[in-house]
Amino acid sequence: MSADTLLAGTATGIAAAVQRGEVSASAMVQASLARITATDARVNAFTDLTAQRALERAATLDARHAAGDTAALPLLGVPFAVKNLFDVQGLATLAGSKIERERAPALRDGPLVERLEAAGAVLVGALNMDEYAYGFTTENSHAGATHNPHDLARSAGGSSGGSGAAIAAGQVPLTLGSDTNGSIRVPSSLCGVFGLKPTYGRLPRHGSYPFVASLDHLGPFARSVPDLALSYDLLQGWEAADPGCVQRPIEPTHATLARGAGGLRIAVLGGYFHEHALPEARAAVERVAAALGVTRRVELPEVARARAAAFLISNAECATLHLGDLRTRAQDFEPLSRDRFLAGALLPAAWVLQAQRVRRWFAQRAAELFGQVDVLLAPATPCVAPRLGTEWLELNGQRLPARPSLGLLTQPISCIGLPVCAVPVWGCSEAQPGLPIGVQVIAAPWREDHALRVGAALEAAGVVRSPVAALD
Amino acid sequence: MSADTLLAGTATGIAAAVQRGEVSASAMVQASLARITATDARVNAFTDLTAQRALERAATLDARHAAGDTAALPLLGVPFAVKNLFDVQGLATLAGSKIERERAPALRDGPLVERLEAAGAVLVGALNMDEYAYGFTTENSHAGATHNPHDLARSAGGSSGGSGAAIAAGQVPLTLGSDTNGSIRVPSSLCGVFGLKPTYGRLPRHGSYPFVASLDHLGPFARSVPDLALSYDLLQGWEAADPGCVQRPIEPTHATLARGAGGLRIAVLGGYFHEHALPEARAAVERVAAALGVTRRVELPEVARARAAAFLISNAECATLHLGDLRTRAQDFEPLSRDRFLAGALLPAAWVLQAQRVRRWFAQRAAELFGQVDVLLAPATPCVAPRLGTEWLELNGQRLPARPSLGLLTQPISCIGLPVCAVPVWGCSEAQPGLPIGVQVIAAPWREDHALRVGAALEAAGVVRSPVAALD
Repeated sequence: MSADTLLAGTATGIAAAVQRGEVSASAMVQASLARITATDARVNAFTDLTAQRALERAATLDARHAAGDTAALPLLGVPFAVKNLFDVQGLATLAGSKIERERAPALRDGPLVERLEAAGAVLVGALNMDEYAYGFTTENSHAGATHNPHDLARSAGGSSGGSGAAIAAGQVPLTLGSDTNGSIRVPSSLCGVFGLKPTYGRLPRHGSYPFVASLDHLGPFARSVPDLALSYDLLQGWEAADPGCVQRPIEPTHATLARGAGGLRIAVLGGYFHEHALPEARAAVERVAAALGVTRRVELPEVARARAAAFLISNAECATLHLGDLRTRAQDFEPLSRDRFLAGALLPAAWVLQAQRVRRWFAQRAAELFGQVDVLLAPATPCVAPRLGTEWLELNGQRLPARPSLGLLTQPISCIGLPVCAVPVWGCSEAQPGLPIGVQVIAAPWREDHALRVGAALEAAGVVRSPVAALD
Repeated sequence: MSADTLLAGTATGIAAAVQRGEVSASAMVQASLARITATDARVNAFTDLTAQRALERAATLDARHAAGDTAALPLLGVPFAVKNLFDVQGLATLAGSKIERERAPALRDGPLVERLEAAGAVLVGALNMDEYAYGFTTENSHAGATHNPHDLARSAGGSSGGSGAAIAAGQVPLTLGSDTNGSIRVPSSLCGVFGLKPTYGRLPRHGSYPFVASLDHLGPFARSVPDLALSYDLLQGWEAADPGCVQRPIEPTHATLARGAGGLRIAVLGGYFHEHALPEARAAVERVAAALGVTRRVELPEVARARAAAFLISNAECATLHLGDLRTRAQDFEPLSRDRFLAGALLPAAWVLQAQRVRRWFAQRAAELFGQVDVLLAPATPCVAPRLGTEWLELNGQRLPARPSLGLLTQPISCIGLPVCAVPVWGCSEAQPGLPIGVQVIAAPWREDHALRVGAALEAAGVVRSPVAALD
């Protein structure tokens, strides 16, 4: 199989071919760089390429392979890229901003980048995002918007828009992103790729640019659930430098996928999650539920309040983080988020503290629900990818601001840190039959294995998939 | 020994005498109730007596003793009382307020009350405090001020003023209180009793009225360090209903006291803790340091900022908790704290979030210091007990508001949750030679044993002690 063909497949497929000597790591990196060169003027997923570093590293891996020293590297020769809020040695960690361009380059890679490279993967660059992760569309005034590879006039979602688009565009089979209010799940949904938002506190955040410490999660995007599970297994593990990372044993999930969804109690999350979805999003959930034989519907109480809590906490924490720059150089912030940053700096503490109490209460209700069910299904976004520049969304009779509304269905879930595997369904929109939309497969805290098993079963049944956009 | 003589001694002494059959639990409870009757019109430590319940319980214990069924009860027949923010079955949990008098009576005792009674102790009543724990002087307009048993014109300290005064007045040998910014250590210092503020997260807070969830600690007061250690050992243990309680194995400290202070690296905490102390407070620390042979001095950086952080977090969280009542019936709040509650409701979130960051930074500096030292010594209050109604404190050339300044030296320590054993020293004030003042014996997180061992060594050497006030 050619490097180009392999590049459009899975990370696991690439690593196996490199292990077998059918293709070199160098050829895979060259194929990735060539695909980026051929497509990124249109997609704009990348803000930085690390071509020289990648080629040198691939050459080293190939030499090790020749010496028989790569058998323990499960991602051997897999090109990958990371949202530009991850520290990459030698690059300023931009977090999508103009201001951080003045920053000193990172002295070392972040731990999650190091962990993937230690498994044989090769970093080829850094990816576009909403400024400081504060958006759902990757409309970035400094770096330009990222375009959805399946319809270049449309948004790739955000804030990890580059991480979703790079996979959909066939540039790399594996990326990392972050999810505070939906920033992994929204681009997964809009770009038609798989994404995993692990349990809050599971993966270390050291070596990444924070957005909202109370809510930030890091996680992988991939073109298949086994790739997602494998990379997630490699990303796990405590990091002493990270006070927010919970010290737990590594719980490998990849080997559990073969069990499928059997034995898991699965239900569709109704109520708010049904009401705030357009027909295409409801159809996607129905398709998934039908494939799993699920007819049960359950509800969570006060979901809108949980979303409001996530908004308030986000708004206040991110404004506090940037208070100095907001006071002295507000004009250098992204116009789409500047006013929200300024508003966040003025929020009363009583609102934010009350929001943290709502969050705790809502987490307790979810914990009770997980006594009766293992996995919940809900749409990832209310709609398929909107056109770039879309200001308003008509949602079941309500006229809502389009950009924040993309997080309507993800925010209540990340607010309480539940693990979610986002899976892409196709052909659900009558108006846009060629566009994907994601379903959130939601599990109890620390049960990523449950969400991944259901995702893998759906993928094996052909219900969800992540094809590369032609971009011809 | 008579019940009255035993009552003026230690809990351990009482339990031993009851076990030996020299005195009954009923006689001990009657002696306690009689002492309260004789003294509390002047001291005003109690807001509620649970006389009937106590006598019934004592009779049950005596019957069990007669049947040989009390050998496993280390606090057999020991009368105790709790700050009125602990739930006591059948009493409204007042937390020092007028508003909570309208509240339904508690359906059961709080877990810490249950744990002491399970060890054979007998609850005789609930104790006065600053309203909602927001003060350092127990000047309570609804219930009247608690008076210091060693000088009735002076404050017993607060907010657990009743808990300190009841021991100093010889009413009970054991009480429970709470400490958010110093509310165990300040009354310990002013009343001349021993107090333990355990590590943040160590003891469950379920079944008590919160003040500031980020900073609240519960803990015991006693007349000796072995009593403190024994009761603390009995109070330990996780409580499933309490999300703030850290699940850890019980680490008994009572048996470690015999080791004394040997082998512990001890230093005096200088800088801020020296500068914000009057001569009597400095003399108390010097006396303790000399007895331990300690000459080493160390400092923590930015202590004033840590105290400011504790103020901001307290102010915002307690105001949020009472927001509804502040909006509709501010006139029912204590006049001494009402304005601070209202101010807390108006604080910007950015200040409070920044305060939490300062707190984390300061905790890291303390952790570094505990790499080189096991125990730190600092005054508990800047001065001996002020007269009730005192508005201003002259502190080394600065004119400071007296009431909040009583927490100058305790707030930076509770802000980062360190365990502290407060020990009382006598005769340090030239102007008030009959009044005590406390020293904080501070240990690293989860090392209550270190603080208690040093306290026990000082007590054994006669440097610190907790005599009962005559009140004749």
